[in-house]
Amino acid sequence: MTETLAGIAADEGLMQSQFVIEMDRQMRAIDPYGEFDRLSTAELLEPFILTKEKRREIPLVGDPDETVVARIKAYYNAISAMIESECGLMAVPLVHLSHEGFGRVIITVGKLVVLDRSVRDVHRFGFPTLSKMKDEADKVLSVALELIGEHSKVAGL
Amino acid sequence: MTETLAGIAADEGLMQSQFVIEMDRQMRAIDPYGEFDRLSTAELLEPFILTKEKRREIPLVGDPDETVVARIKAYYNAISAMIESECGLMAVPLVHLSHEGFGRVIITVGKLVVLDRSVRDVHRFGFPTLSKMKDEADKVLSVALELIGEHSKVAGL
Repeated sequence: MTETLAGIAADEGLMQSQFVIEMDRQMRAIDPYGEFDRLSTAELLEPFILTKEKRREIPLVGDPDETVVARIKAYYNAISAMIESECGLMAVPLVHLSHEGFGRVIITVGKLVVLDRSVRDVHRFGFPTLSKMKDEADKVLSVALELIGEHSKVAGL
Repeated sequence: MTETLAGIAADEGLMQSQFVIEMDRQMRAIDPYGEFDRLSTAELLEPFILTKEKRREIPLVGDPDETVVARIKAYYNAISAMIESECGLMAVPLVHLSHEGFGRVIITVGKLVVLDRSVRDVHRFGFPTLSKMKDEADKVLSVALELIGEHSKVAGL
């Protein structure tokens, strides 16, 4: 773990990207008792990183617990916040999960759906590396911003 | 109850409206054991009707049980089915409720949000009369169809 952390923390560009800063903020926002205060950003985002080995340890079938669901919400909240700061319009995420861990995630801007995806096996939610996690989020962001640009009238409703 | 039922059933125009037919279908769809087979449409939709007296009997604060949630889903499914049959595009409802009975209901057509409402106190979900219930649904339907007409490109995405 320390090795990965060191690797992550060394990448300054990544650690100062808008996404990582926003993820840090989102994670601290759901920590009412200040348990995360002593954690660095890299340590805070460590649970999002599932290397192949870590993924192998998680059973294929399982119910997501509260902390995983909170992580998923933080992730989509961060993306929504980024959309909002880029286009100036409010982006509203909706994470709809069954207790068995599948469901649908939607982000709306005005009357425009800028993200609509089915999710499953959310108890195994994670990314191979932090940099891949950021790339994923940036991809969602750019698709969303393109949609908003094309259909600005609907996004402004 | 029988009085209300008789009153409802007497209104043939109402009972043969697209909305009531669709509601009947939706309610029977969630009845895998055929418990509703012996019920008429009016009897089937009776639980949706909350007269002032009935509403007064329900506590102000309460958690919705499964049957209420199923009814709410049936209601928005029926509206979605009507949207679909009118415009020929798939309408997808999403009823997102906390266990405390508040939440958000969304219906999307393509990338267009045709209904987006906050709901609360869903354990008290109901309408004063069946005819008012139909009017409510028709209003949602016409707003949705207008939006789809105005933004057909987004609805077709």
